[in-house]
This record gives sequence, C-alpha cells and structure tokens, in this order.
Amino acid sequence: MLRSVTLNDTQAIAIGAGILGTGGGGSTYLNRLRLDNEIRQQGCDVAIVQADDVPDDALVCAVGGMGAPTVSNEKLQAGDEIKTAVRALENHLRQKIHAIVIGEIGGGNALGPMIAALQLGLPVVDGDGMGRAFPELQMDTFMIYGAAPAPFALADSHGNVSIFTRIGSAEQAEEFARSLTIEMGGSAALVMPVMTGAELKATVIRDTVSLAKRIGETVLECRARSIEPAETIAALCHGKVLFTGKIIDVERRTVAGFARGRLKISAFTPQHPTQRIGDSAPREAGGPRGVLEIDFQNENLIARDNGAVLCTVPDLLTLVTLEDGEPIGTESLRYGLRVAVLAMPAPKELKTPEALAVVGPRAFGYDVDFSPMAGDLL
Amino acid sequence: MLRSVTLNDTQAIAIGAGILGTGGGGSTYLNRLRLDNEIRQQGCDVAIVQADDVPDDALVCAVGGMGAPTVSNEKLQAGDEIKTAVRALENHLRQKIHAIVIGEIGGGNALGPMIAALQLGLPVVDGDGMGRAFPELQMDTFMIYGAAPAPFALADSHGNVSIFTRIGSAEQAEEFARSLTIEMGGSAALVMPVMTGAELKATVIRDTVSLAKRIGETVLECRARSIEPAETIAALCHGKVLFTGKIIDVERRTVAGFARGRLKISAFTPQHPTQRIGDSAPREAGGPRGVLEIDFQNENLIARDNGAVLCTVPDLLTLVTLEDGEPIGTESLRYGLRVAVLAMPAPKELKTPEALAVVGPRAFGYDVDFSPMAGDLL
Repeated sequence: MLRSVTLNDTQAIAIGAGILGTGGGGSTYLNRLRLDNEIRQQGCDVAIVQADDVPDDALVCAVGGMGAPTVSNEKLQAGDEIKTAVRALENHLRQKIHAIVIGEIGGGNALGPMIAALQLGLPVVDGDGMGRAFPELQMDTFMIYGAAPAPFALADSHGNVSIFTRIGSAEQAEEFARSLTIEMGGSAALVMPVMTGAELKATVIRDTVSLAKRIGETVLECRARSIEPAETIAALCHGKVLFTGKIIDVERRTVAGFARGRLKISAFTPQHPTQRIGDSAPREAGGPRGVLEIDFQNENLIARDNGAVLCTVPDLLTLVTLEDGEPIGTESLRYGLRVAVLAMPAPKELKTPEALAVVGPRAFGYDVDFSPMAGDLL
Repeated sequence: MLRSVTLNDTQAIAIGAGILGTGGGGSTYLNRLRLDNEIRQQGCDVAIVQADDVPDDALVCAVGGMGAPTVSNEKLQAGDEIKTAVRALENHLRQKIHAIVIGEIGGGNALGPMIAALQLGLPVVDGDGMGRAFPELQMDTFMIYGAAPAPFALADSHGNVSIFTRIGSAEQAEEFARSLTIEMGGSAALVMPVMTGAELKATVIRDTVSLAKRIGETVLECRARSIEPAETIAALCHGKVLFTGKIIDVERRTVAGFARGRLKISAFTPQHPTQRIGDSAPREAGGPRGVLEIDFQNENLIARDNGAVLCTVPDLLTLVTLEDGEPIGTESLRYGLRVAVLAMPAPKELKTPEALAVVGPRAFGYDVDFSPMAGDLL
C-alpha cells in the first residue's frame, strides 16, 4: 500500500501518469521538475492516504489544471495556483480541506495536485476521478456519480480567483470554466468538486497513483534491460499493443481552449527494410498493416484503420515511443516519431450506462457504440 | 431632496435615465414595467437615501446589468439576478449590505437596481458611478477613484453565480466578467464594487436619480404642451441640440459582448420641403448642415461631421425622437427616424486626468483629445 511519494518515485509516476494520460492531462516534464523541487524545499515527501481512511464527514476536493496542453506546455505557471484556489474555497466555505484528490491521474495533472498538497500540508488520496485523462470537467466519476458542481474555484497565474457558488450542472460548469480559462490565457488551476469523505468513497477510482507508479517502474525496468516496453506496459494494464509504426501526419489546432486534431500512423512494412531495424517479433506479427488514424481533443479519443473503429473512449489509447516507452502527449506529436499505440481497457467505473453517457464515444460526437475491450484497467 | 421613487415617478425616471444613457445602459421599457410591478407587489415605494447619510463603515455595493443592449432587449431576465448576486456576496463576506448603489444611471440600469433594492428590502442611494452609461465596468468613478475590484459577483438568469474573490485590476475584471457574460448568454447581473460608506462618499456622483427624474418630468411636460422637448432637455442638462435630422444609415454588429456600430444622420435641408413639416425655428437655424456620423459601443462615443469632431466621451451624446423626446437606444436605431442629437457636458467627476485616462476618447481608441463642452451636467 502506497504511503508516500518520494524523490525516488517521481520519475516512475511521471511516466506512468503520461501513459494513463492518453495524450492529455498536460506534460509531465515540467510538473515533475516542480514536484522534485517542492519535495526538496519542503524537506518532506508527499503523504498518500487511502480513500477509505478519509473520515466520512471530512471535506476533500479534487484539483487539477484546466486548459489545452499546447498552452500549458509553454505558458509557465506561477506554481501556487491550486493552493490559492483551495485556500479561497476553504475561506468561502469556512471549513478546512482534509485531503487533496487528483482530478485526473493522466499526465501532468497527476503531479500538480501533489505539489499543491505539499504547499498546503495535506495528504493526497491514492485514486482519482478518471483513471486516465479526459478533456472536460464533467467527465469524472465524482460528477458522473452525483457530486455537486458548486462551489468550484478557478485561479490563474496572476493570482486572480473566481469561485462559482451556484451552477446548474457539471456541463454548465465546464462551459463557464472553459471560457474563463481561455480568458485567463488558456490554462488555469481548477478545484472541483468539493466532496465529503463519504462522497469520495462512493465515487473515486482507487489505487491509480499506485498504478501510475507501477507502470512507470515497469518502463524504467525495461529501459534498464534494453527491452522495448510497449508489450510489457500493455500486459500490466490488461491491454494490448494496437499498432506500431511511424507518424506520417499530424493535424492540430488549439481551438475553443482545446488541442484538437488528428494524426496518422503508417505501419512498418516489409517493403521498407530500413524501418525494420530493431523491430521485434510481436510488431511484425501483430496489428493491421494499414494507416491508423487517431482523433484527439486534448486526449486521444478514437482509433480507426481504413474507417474500421479499433478503439474508442473511454478505453485508453496512448502513444509511446517505440524504443523507450516514453508517453507522447498530443501537444508533442510530430512527423517521423516511431511509436507503439497502446490500447488499454477503461476502469470499470467508466463503463456503466451513466458513465458512458458522459465519456462514451457518442458524448464526443462519434456515431459509434462503445465496444469495450476485454477486462478492466484495474 | 428625493426620498422615494413611487409609481408616479417611474415613467419620468425611465425617460430621464434613457436620455442620460447616451444610447446604452439597456432599454428602460422592460425594466420600467418590472419596477412598476415590483412596487405594486411589495406594496411599498423604493426608498432613496443620500450618500452622505450612509454610515462610513456600512457596506454598500454598486449593481447593474452587464451585456449588449441588443441582447438584453430580447433575452428576458429571471428578475432576481441582482438580488441573487448581492445575497451571494453577503454570504461570502459574512456582512450585510446597507444600501444599493446604481452603477450607471443611464438606461435600464437606473431601474434594475431599484427592483433589486425592493426585493432585498434596502434603500437606493441618490447617485451613481457614471452620471450616464459607459460600456465597460472599469469606467465608473468608484473604480477610477480607487475602489477595489474584488470581490465582485456575476449572476445569470438560470441562477448561476460566480464570485471573483481576487482580481488584479478593474480592467482585468472587465475582461473576465465580459467573457463570462457572453457565456451566460450575453447578459448578466453584476455586483461591483463593494464599498464602505466612506468610499462611496468619496467617489459617487450625487443626485443623478433626482436629475433623471427632473429630465423625465420636463419631457412629459413638453409632451403635454405639444412642444418638441430637445431644446428644453438640453438647457436643463447645460448642453445643446447638436444636430437634427433623419437617420439614413445604421451599421450595427453585436461583437465580443458589445453592440458596436456607426450611424449617419442627414440634416433636414430646405431642398426637401416635405421633411420640414413641423420643423421649428431652432432646427432650421442651428447646427451643421451635413451628415452627422456617430460611433457607438453600446453607448454613443463620438460625433463627427465631415471628419470634424463635434463631441466625444465623456460628454454625453443622446439621440431623442424629434416629436416627443423619447431617448433612442443604440439597439433601436433604424433608418428613417427623425431625431435630435443632444450634446451634454459630462459631470465634473469624469473630467479629471484620472477619469479621462479611463473614459476619454483615447481610452476608446480615438486619436483625439477631449475637448470638453462648457459647463457640467450637474
């Protein structure tokens, strides 16, 4: 059972969170540097608590960064936005927050809450609301399973803070928060929702910090042993390597506060012998031999081969570099990268009818039923 | 000294506020109906207090509607948005509001605060922060002379409420509030700023509710005596009739949350005898004989004749119908209206260097110095 996150763990968690991030959740690079720095400055590790150890009547809040990864990658944070927003909410509610909850375990959003927790002197719950990353704030299990959208807080890098005290729905919250985030320069800290311990226990996806750490450690082990990590990661996450190849096209635009776009990956083929150097057996044997197309909205949403749908949200689609299993955010996609596409089953909490109404392919505008992969992420 | 606003006063105040509105501040029509209704329902008049009678340490707040008049004219309010926002701020501050202050006396924004005051059981201060209407929220004497921009509250017709608890500047507040207002459908209730009685006394433009009433009563008297009211209104406001003629062109677009555009008015000329029916002597004798162009951003900003600047913000430019002196909002401009253009000097509080930096022609992007009319509005 994970009790703390130390300097020895941050690299693994950053890699694991990147892989769970399905292309989004923000780059882990800067946040890992910031987390290491914060641990050193504070002189203590990040305390981790189990959701079931949080008292039923204690208050907790989910936190994270809102905005397009293309923006947050370049627009530096002040570093204390989440803390500022949490303090503003505590002041508004006249109640102390007991523990910090990671809104989404995917990408840099796994690490930002740990930094804030250190600054606030609070523990972090081993779990999150997505088991991955999603682009919109109604898309977490807290909101899906009934947490109240208000009050929530947004803070920017200039210290501006807004608390939404009454909101009709989580979707409405998303619209207001997105528009304000854009006005705040395209990235902001979000604290939402505020929950009791009882609500947390009823809705959280447990053990995802532990999972991120385990995935990252596996990748690091593979690297140490010079093994391409894709198959090993896939097995650990009960998924598979969907495709391997080279990125041949990326269409990307930052629009309405999101990084949206489409990428194409061309399979390695016997016709191009130079591309096969170092290819391992599974890659030659497995997967379709065409061009894989992936649509993304911050996160990878759907993978298609010649129109045939191979994998959709909420199942996880992550690109990693072939050689060392480094997760590739949608803001870092570029022509020529040699990648493996991992497909991993969603956590079971995302596959109920209530959840699929919010995070299934139709919620993203695809006229496709969700055809789940076998198994669950954890 | 005005002590209350009764059912007998609302028509006059609506007309006077419309004339002070310089085309903006929202239509008075709906808000007058709503105010009459509220007075009848509550069974009491709107209590008016003098700014100097508010205790120095009491809290007051300025309130009004934010958005483009083109929108608020068509998108009905729930009716209690301002009340909701004031209550949310009281709850956030854990302090009661002592009196309601009208943010801008121009247009429907003179009347909305009275409705809210009745709902809240609070008096309204005889004064406001503009002595007219302006399009942006940093453009009031409260903010110009140092009131803090935070906390402020926005509420929409669905009951959604946001409180901005920390804001770097009034201009920043304008940007956030405008973007959220657009997301809220183009109109919202704004409560800003919260001030002490001492701050109010140092910054408010006094007696503008009384002035609006007096202007409206004058118009009604003129109508009763079948006199075209323009010259009489102008004299009462220490201004002049700048131009009379027919609107021949209106270019209007609702953009970035504002009603922006330009109108052209062609002077009545001897060459068109049919247009002279009913023309009175002053109109034939006075004013330039060309085409007057007026630019507006919710409010009329600048009047030019053949490129020569005749009048700019912060001096007041208001169009009224020729026959009965009814003020014409920028959302109601249309081809063929026969109008008088009133030019009236701004209140002295808007003509200091600090104020002109915020509400002078350069603040609106015009490369023109402010050339004040003689005198002051009041």
